Amino acid sequence: MGYFDAASSAPLHPVARQALQASLDEGWADPARLYREGRRARMLLDAAREAAAEAVGCRTDELVFTSSGTKAVHTGIAGALAGRRRVGRHLIVSAVEHSCVLHAADTHEADGGTVTQVAVDRAGAVTVEAYGRALRDDTALACLQSANHEVGTEQPVAEVAGVCREAGVPLLVDAAQSLGWGRVAGDWSLLTASAHKWGGPSGVGLLVVRKGVRFAAQGPADERESGRAAGFENIPAIVAAAASLRAVRAEAAQEAVRLRELTERIRARVPGLVPDVEVVGDPVRRLPGVVTFSCLYVDGETLLHELDRAGFSVSSGSSCTSSTLTPSHVLKAMGVLSEGNVRVSLPFGTAAEDVERFLEVLPEAVAGVREKLGAPVGEAVVREEDVLVVDSLGKRCPIPVIELAKVIGEVPVGGLVRVLSDDEAARLDIPAWCEMRGQEYVGEEPAEQGTAYLVRRIG
Amino acid sequence: MGYFDAASSAPLHPVARQALQASLDEGWADPARLYREGRRARMLLDAAREAAAEAVGCRTDELVFTSSGTKAVHTGIAGALAGRRRVGRHLIVSAVEHSCVLHAADTHEADGGTVTQVAVDRAGAVTVEAYGRALRDDTALACLQSANHEVGTEQPVAEVAGVCREAGVPLLVDAAQSLGWGRVAGDWSLLTASAHKWGGPSGVGLLVVRKGVRFAAQGPADERESGRAAGFENIPAIVAAAASLRAVRAEAAQEAVRLRELTERIRARVPGLVPDVEVVGDPVRRLPGVVTFSCLYVDGETLLHELDRAGFSVSSGSSCTSSTLTPSHVLKAMGVLSEGNVRVSLPFGTAAEDVERFLEVLPEAVAGVREKLGAPVGEAVVREEDVLVVDSLGKRCPIPVIELAKVIGEVPVGGLVRVLSDDEAARLDIPAWCEMRGQEYVGEEPAEQGTAYLVRRIG
Repeated sequence: MGYFDAASSAPLHPVARQALQASLDEGWADPARLYREGRRARMLLDAAREAAAEAVGCRTDELVFTSSGTKAVHTGIAGALAGRRRVGRHLIVSAVEHSCVLHAADTHEADGGTVTQVAVDRAGAVTVEAYGRALRDDTALACLQSANHEVGTEQPVAEVAGVCREAGVPLLVDAAQSLGWGRVAGDWSLLTASAHKWGGPSGVGLLVVRKGVRFAAQGPADERESGRAAGFENIPAIVAAAASLRAVRAEAAQEAVRLRELTERIRARVPGLVPDVEVVGDPVRRLPGVVTFSCLYVDGETLLHELDRAGFSVSSGSSCTSSTLTPSHVLKAMGVLSEGNVRVSLPFGTAAEDVERFLEVLPEAVAGVREKLGAPVGEAVVREEDVLVVDSLGKRCPIPVIELAKVIGEVPVGGLVRVLSDDEAARLDIPAWCEMRGQEYVGEEPAEQGTAYLVRRIG
Repeated sequence: MGYFDAASSAPLHPVARQALQASLDEGWADPARLYREGRRARMLLDAAREAAAEAVGCRTDELVFTSSGTKAVHTGIAGALAGRRRVGRHLIVSAVEHSCVLHAADTHEADGGTVTQVAVDRAGAVTVEAYGRALRDDTALACLQSANHEVGTEQPVAEVAGVCREAGVPLLVDAAQSLGWGRVAGDWSLLTASAHKWGGPSGVGLLVVRKGVRFAAQGPADERESGRAAGFENIPAIVAAAASLRAVRAEAAQEAVRLRELTERIRARVPGLVPDVEVVGDPVRRLPGVVTFSCLYVDGETLLHELDRAGFSVSSGSSCTSSTLTPSHVLKAMGVLSEGNVRVSLPFGTAAEDVERFLEVLPEAVAGVREKLGAPVGEAVVREEDVLVVDSLGKRCPIPVIELAKVIGEVPVGGLVRVLSDDEAARLDIPAWCEMRGQEYVGEEPAEQGTAYLVRRIG
C-alpha cells in the first residue's frame, strides 16, 4: 500500500488502537463525578495529561485537551489576543501557516484587529529578522509553525521565540507537523498540536499555555479543562492520543533517519526521472517524512487520480485539486511553481519498497497526464506587431503554461509573448516557469478580460 | 452493577463499540481528499449523516456533526443570534436549561445582548403562555430543552415551537436528554444533541439548522461540516454515534415502557421507605429513565458517597456536591428542596434487580447520613423576646434546616424561629422545608452576617 499523505492524517498507530479499546470500558463516565466510574475516568484523564505534558515538556496544569488541532489553534489565538488586549490588537503570523491559523487571523482582522503576514523565502522559511521587524509596541501575539505542512520546511522557532521574548510578546507555535518527532525547542509561550497527525485518533488537540502568559478564553466556557475547552471530555480518545504520542516518540529518532533517507531518494531521483520538475522546500532543514515537487505542464488533480489508480495516495497544493480554484497559499508565498504539485508525506513505518515502487510509477503517470494535456494551441495565437498573443481565457492550470511553452520558440530572442488568462494559478505559475526555463518574466497588466502576462524570450 | 447516572453519560452501547472499531480502519483519512482512503472516509461520513438525519427527521444538508453537545449548543445559539442580528438581540431561554445553554446566554449578555429567563412551575415545566409573553419584536432566538436533565420533566416543545413560529422567531431545541427516545415533535428551527447521552461515544454532537433559518456561524471557520464545525472530522466516532442512535431507537419503544415502570417503582416506594423525602419533577410528562428526589436533613455529597460504597452511582443537584457551593439552578428555579438531592437516571438495559437492590440500600444510606449529621444545636439557640434565634452561620447545607427542625417544637404555635445562615442553599431549602412540614415561611431579611430566615410555627 502507498498511503503517502501522513501530513493530512496518519493511520491509527497500533498503540493508539489498543489504548482506545482498553479505555472505552473505563473512560466513558463524567470525570467530574464522585462515584467509581467518574473517578476511574478522572484517573485516566490525569494520566493522559501527565504523559502528554511530559512529551511536550510542560507542566500538567499548562496543558488542556481540545477537540482538534484546529480548535486548539482557534482557542489559543483568541485567548492570547484577548489576554493582551490592553497592549494592542496586532497579530503576527507567517504567510505559510496552516489555514486554521490564517482563518483565526482573518476573524481577528474582521473584528478590528490588525495582522502582519511575515513573508518566506523560496524554501518556505521565515527569517528571525523578519519576525523582529514585524514586532510592534501594540503586538499582542505572534504565531509560527514549527514546520510547514506542505513542503516540510522547518522554521527557526527557537530563534523567533527569543526575539519575541525580548520584546515581551508571546509566541504561539503550531507544532502539528512536528510534535510526534520531538519537543519544540526554545522559549515559546503557547503551543498547539493535533493527535491524528502523529497516529493518534481524530478528535483530540493539545493547547499548552505557559504559566504567566496572559490568557482570557473567549466564548462560553464551563468548568472542564481549566475553562479552556468546553464540553464533555473525550477520554478514550485522549488516552489513545497520549499513549500513541509516547509510542511514536520512542521510535522517533530511529524512524526519522529512515524516513529522511527515503524522502532523500525522492528528492534526489525525481528530477532525473521526470523532466521539468521543481523540488520545493528546504533540502536540509525539513521534516523527515515530507517531500514536495511540482511538475510543469501537469494538472495536479489528474495526476493525483493517476497516482491513486497506481495505488498511491498523495496530496497536492495545485489550484486544480479538490474544491479549491486557487493554488495553495504556501506555494504562492514561496513563489514556486504550483502546477502538477505533489506532496509525499510518509507515515511511520513506510516500507522502502513502496517508495521505490512510487518512483517507478511516477514518470509514467506524469507523462500520461502531459500527453492528455498536449492540446494544440493553433487558433488561439495571434501575432500583434512584435508580440505573440496567446489567448488562454477560460482555460485552467496547467493549460496557460503549456500554451506559453509551445509558442515561446516562435518569437525571436528578445521578442515578447503575451498570455491572456483568467486562471488565478497563472499569476504564480508563469513567473515560476520563466525562472525554471531561464526566460524573462516582464510582468502582468489588466486585460479586457482576465490578466495579460508578459514574457520575453531570452534563450 | 448500579450505574444510575445515564443522564450524565451513558455506557458505550455495544453497537457503538462495534461501529467504532470497524471504522477505525476505514475512517481515519481526510474525507476531503480524492484518493481511496479519503473517499472511504467520505462514504462513512455521508452514511452516518444520512442515518443521523433520518433519526432526527431532517435533511442531510441540515445536519452537521460537532465535537460535543455543548459545542453544538454554543455554535447553534451564536450562529442563530448572529443570523438575526438585524431583528434584535433578545434571547429567550428557560430557567432550567442545561448549563451550556445558560453559559451561551451569559456570553450573549456580556456582549451587549438581552436575555429573558422563562420561569418554570414546581414540576420543572415551562408554559406555552410564558414563552408567548417573553417573545418581543427584537427576539432573535428562543431556546428550550426537550426534557430536563435533572428531574426528567418533558417540556411542551411542539406547542412552544408553534408560538415561536407564529411570531417568526426560531426555536432551538436542546434534545440532549431525549433524542435517543425519539424525534422531537413540532416545527422547531434548530436542534442540538450529544451522542454520549444515548450510548454513543464522547466527542460527537449534532447541530441541525432547518433550511430557511438565518444562520451565520461565528468565529474562524473552514470548509468542513458546511462551515459550521471547524476542524478535522472525527469519523470513527461519528459512525459509532449514528449507528448507536439507530440501535437505541430500535429498542426505544419497548425499553421506555420497561424503564418507566422501574422509575415508577422508585417514585412510588421511596416516600414510604425514607421519611421526609420529596420526589420532584413531573410524575407523568417525564423521561422514562429519570427520577429525582430530595431527602430532608441530608448532605447530598455524603449520601452520594454512601450510595457509591453500596455500589450505586447517582448524581445530585445538592449544593454540597462536587466543586459547587450553590444548589442546582434547576431545583432552585423549581423552588423545591435541594438538600439530600439524588437523581437516578437508568441506562438502557438496567436490570430490575438492580433497582430493587437500590431501594433496599437507600433507606439505610439516608439514615446513616442523618445520624452523622444529628448534631446538637444547644448553644446556638437564643430566645429574643418571642423569637427563637438559631445561629447557623458558617454551617453548610443541610445543617441550617436540621437545626430549624430541632427547635420548631420549642416555640408555641404562632411563634417565630429566626434562622441565621450564610449558606446559599438555605434560601431554597428553608422555604421548601416549610412547605413540606406545613409551617409558614414568613420571609428573609438581611442580618448583620448572612441572612435571617423567618419561620412561623403553624402546627
